[in-house]
Amino acid sequence: MAGSITPRVLKGFRDFLPERETGKRYLIAQLEKVFKLFGFVPIDTPVLEYTDILLGKGGGETDKQIYRFFDNGNRDIAMRYDLTVPFARFMSQHRNELYLPFRRYHIAKVWRGENTQKGRYREFTQCDFDIVGSDSVSADFEILFLMYTSLISIGIKKFTIHVSDRNLFNRLLEKLEIKEKSAEILRTVDKVKKIGTDKVHSLLSEITGKTKADAIIRFISKGADFTGTVEAIRNSIGAEAGETTRIEEIWKFIEDLNLTESFTFDPSITRGLDYYTGIVFETYLNEMPAIGSVCSGGRYNNLTALYSREAIPGVGSSIGLDRLMAAVELLATGKQISPVPQVIILNLDESLLTYYQLIALELRNNGISTETYPDKKKLAVQFNFAGKKGIPLAVICGEDEKSQGLITLKDLRTRKSYSGLTLDTLKDTIKMLL
Amino acid sequence: MAGSITPRVLKGFRDFLPERETGKRYLIAQLEKVFKLFGFVPIDTPVLEYTDILLGKGGGETDKQIYRFFDNGNRDIAMRYDLTVPFARFMSQHRNELYLPFRRYHIAKVWRGENTQKGRYREFTQCDFDIVGSDSVSADFEILFLMYTSLISIGIKKFTIHVSDRNLFNRLLEKLEIKEKSAEILRTVDKVKKIGTDKVHSLLSEITGKTKADAIIRFISKGADFTGTVEAIRNSIGAEAGETTRIEEIWKFIEDLNLTESFTFDPSITRGLDYYTGIVFETYLNEMPAIGSVCSGGRYNNLTALYSREAIPGVGSSIGLDRLMAAVELLATGKQISPVPQVIILNLDESLLTYYQLIALELRNNGISTETYPDKKKLAVQFNFAGKKGIPLAVICGEDEKSQGLITLKDLRTRKSYSGLTLDTLKDTIKMLL
Repeated sequence: MAGSITPRVLKGFRDFLPERETGKRYLIAQLEKVFKLFGFVPIDTPVLEYTDILLGKGGGETDKQIYRFFDNGNRDIAMRYDLTVPFARFMSQHRNELYLPFRRYHIAKVWRGENTQKGRYREFTQCDFDIVGSDSVSADFEILFLMYTSLISIGIKKFTIHVSDRNLFNRLLEKLEIKEKSAEILRTVDKVKKIGTDKVHSLLSEITGKTKADAIIRFISKGADFTGTVEAIRNSIGAEAGETTRIEEIWKFIEDLNLTESFTFDPSITRGLDYYTGIVFETYLNEMPAIGSVCSGGRYNNLTALYSREAIPGVGSSIGLDRLMAAVELLATGKQISPVPQVIILNLDESLLTYYQLIALELRNNGISTETYPDKKKLAVQFNFAGKKGIPLAVICGEDEKSQGLITLKDLRTRKSYSGLTLDTLKDTIKMLL
Repeated sequence: MAGSITPRVLKGFRDFLPERETGKRYLIAQLEKVFKLFGFVPIDTPVLEYTDILLGKGGGETDKQIYRFFDNGNRDIAMRYDLTVPFARFMSQHRNELYLPFRRYHIAKVWRGENTQKGRYREFTQCDFDIVGSDSVSADFEILFLMYTSLISIGIKKFTIHVSDRNLFNRLLEKLEIKEKSAEILRTVDKVKKIGTDKVHSLLSEITGKTKADAIIRFISKGADFTGTVEAIRNSIGAEAGETTRIEEIWKFIEDLNLTESFTFDPSITRGLDYYTGIVFETYLNEMPAIGSVCSGGRYNNLTALYSREAIPGVGSSIGLDRLMAAVELLATGKQISPVPQVIILNLDESLLTYYQLIALELRNNGISTETYPDKKKLAVQFNFAGKKGIPLAVICGEDEKSQGLITLKDLRTRKSYSGLTLDTLKDTIKMLL
C-alpha cells in the first residue's frame, strides 16, 4: 500500500513553499497596515455561495469558468470567482448593521477554471478595497490615493495609474449613436494595451464602420498632458463644460497632493465590464507593462441592484496579489523577507535538552527567532543543515560550558566564533551581529 | 429586476463583519508572531485537490462530509476537509526541496458538510503547526511548548494541556488481547470528556465485556499527580520501566521549564484517530471546559505512507481558530481590537477637500488611522455617523481656520474641544488623547 497514490496537484493550482508564502504574507501585512491607516476595515464572506447569488442573470464568460456543483443537500452552489459579487450580496444583507459610507477591504482566494495555457492560475488571491455609500469625488480620489500609497508601501515606485471617466465614453457612444453596441465596443477597446491601436481600429470598423471607428480611436488617444487630453476629448465628443468636471476635480486632488508623476488621464481605459458608472482605472508598472494591470477598478453605482431595491453607490479597486508578487520578485524592489530563523541551537548533549529550551525561551523573549535542533546527530550534520537553510547564527553549548554557565555563538556566514558568553551577553552579541 | 435575488448565505456558512474579522486577523497575527519566534515557517496548499489524494483508501465518516464534485475537465475533485492530509501530500511531493527537520504552520479554511444542528459550521479556519523529520522527545516537547506559548500570547491564561502516550494505551490493549478492536475502543474512550466515565464504561462493556472494560477504565483514571499516574499505569498494564520513559522525559521538560500548572498527564486522552503513534494531547480552558478542546494533536510517524515509500516521522497540533475566537470573546481576556479608525476629518467645505486629504496624509504618516468624511452633509449628520461608529476624535476645519493655518480637534468621548492647533500640535494632541 505504501506510496500507492501519486502526490500531485490539479492543473492550474500550486503549493506555496515557505519562501513564497512568507513573501505573500508579508505583502498582505504591509497592505493591511496601509488600509487600516486609511480607516478601511476587513470583512470575510464564505467561499461557497448559492449559484444564483454569484451568477445573477448569468449568461456571460463567467458561467463557463465557475466551479459549480450540487452539495449533499442538493443545493446548486459554487465557489466565488471574484470578491465583488459576494460583497454586493454582503452589503444588501447587512445594510442595517453598517454605517455608510463604509470602507472595507477583503483579501481572499477566488477560483476560475481558466485556460491554463495562457499561464493563468485557477486559484488566486485578490485584494479588494471599496468605499460604498458615497458618490463623491473625494471617495473617488481616496481609492486612487490608497492604490498609490499601497504600491509605494510594498516597495514599488515606478508605476502609472491610468484614469478615465466612463461617462465621457458613454457620451461618445451616444453622440455616434452606437450605444446599443456598447458592451461589444467596451470589450474591444479594453484590448488596446494588449493588441495595439491598429488592431482595435480594424476590429471596431467591423462593429461600427470605419468612420465611427476613427472617431473612437481619436477619442481614446491621449493628448500631450492632462489639459491637452481634456481639450481633445471635448472636441471629440463636443462636450459641454460640465461633462469633464469630474475628471478635472479628480485631477485637482492629484495635483494638490503632488502625485502627477504617478497618474495619467487615459481615455482608452474602459474596463470592459458593463457595471462601471464613473471613473475607471488601471495600473501599469513602468518597468514591466507587459504583465498587465496590477490594480484596477472604478465607480459602480448599482452594485446591489440584483439583491435589493436600495441603490448603494460605490467606488473600489482590486489588486491581483499573485501578479503583484511576481512583479515584486522580478523587480526585487521589495524588502527581502526570509522565512529562516535567526538562530539555531545545536544539540551537543541529550542531557542538556531542557537547557537548550531555556536558552531558546530567553532569545525568543527578546524577539530573536530561534529553532532548536531536536535530534542527537553528528555536529557536522547539524552545521550542514543550518548552512543549507541559511540560518546565520548557531548557539553551541556542551556539558563543560554549561557547568561554567558559558555559551559559544558561531556566525555561520563569517565562520567567526564568540566564546565565553553568558545568557545576557549572548543576546546582545546576537543583536549586534544580525 | 431590482432586488430579484434574495441575499442569503448557505446553511452552516457565515459572513464575518468588520469587528469579528478584525478580531480574527489579530488572533492570527499574534499566533504567527509566536510561530516565527519558534522558527516555524508558513506554507499554503490548494483548496481543491484530487479526491483520491484527500480520501486515500476512504470509507470513513469523512467521505460523507466532504464537498466533492467533477470539474469541467471531468476530474474527480474535492475541497480539503483538514490541513493534515494536504500537508502529507505536500511533504511527499516537495521532500527534496525542504530540509528536515521541517517546522511549518498553515492557517487556512477547511470545509465539512457537518450536521449544523449541533451548532457546527461547514466552513471554518484551522491553524496547524508541525515538526516533521524528527522522532525526538525534544520535538514532542517543542510542540507542547508552542501550544502553551500561543495560548498565553492571545491572552488565555487558565488552560490545561492534557497529555498521554498512545503507546501505553496500545500496550494495555495488547495485554487485554483486544488489539483488533482498537479503532472502536479508541473512539469510545475519546468520548469520556463529553459523556462521562459511567457511560463509557457501559459502552466498553458491550465491546469488550465487563472485566476488560473495568481494566480500561482503571487505566484512563488519573492518579493524584504525575508520579501517581505513572505508578497507576505501570500497575495497570504491568509495564516494564522503559515503557513509561517517553512520558517521563516529556514531563522533565515541563518541570524544568516551570509549566506544571498548565499540563497534566491524562491517560484518557486517545484522540480517536488511528494514525497517532506516540504522544497525544488536548487542551481545555479551565473556565469553559464544555466548549471542548481548543488545541489538539499528537505524534504520527507514518504521515506520508499513502503517497511515498519514505516514512517521515512528525508531531503536530491544530488550533480550532473559530472555537478559540468564541472563547476569547466570551472570556474577554484578549486585547480589545477595534476596527474603527482613530480620527475622522469632517467635511465642512467642499473647497477644502484636498486640504483634508493633506491633513489625513500627515496623520497617517504618524501612524494615526484616519478617515475622511467624503460627502458634504450637515455637521450633525457627520457627528452622528462618527458617534455611532465609535470614532473617538474628530478634526474640524473650515475656510476661516484654514486661512489662519489652524485646526480644531474634538474628543467625541468627552465632548471637549481643542482649538487653535497647527498640523504639528494636532498630531501631538491626538497622540496624547488616544
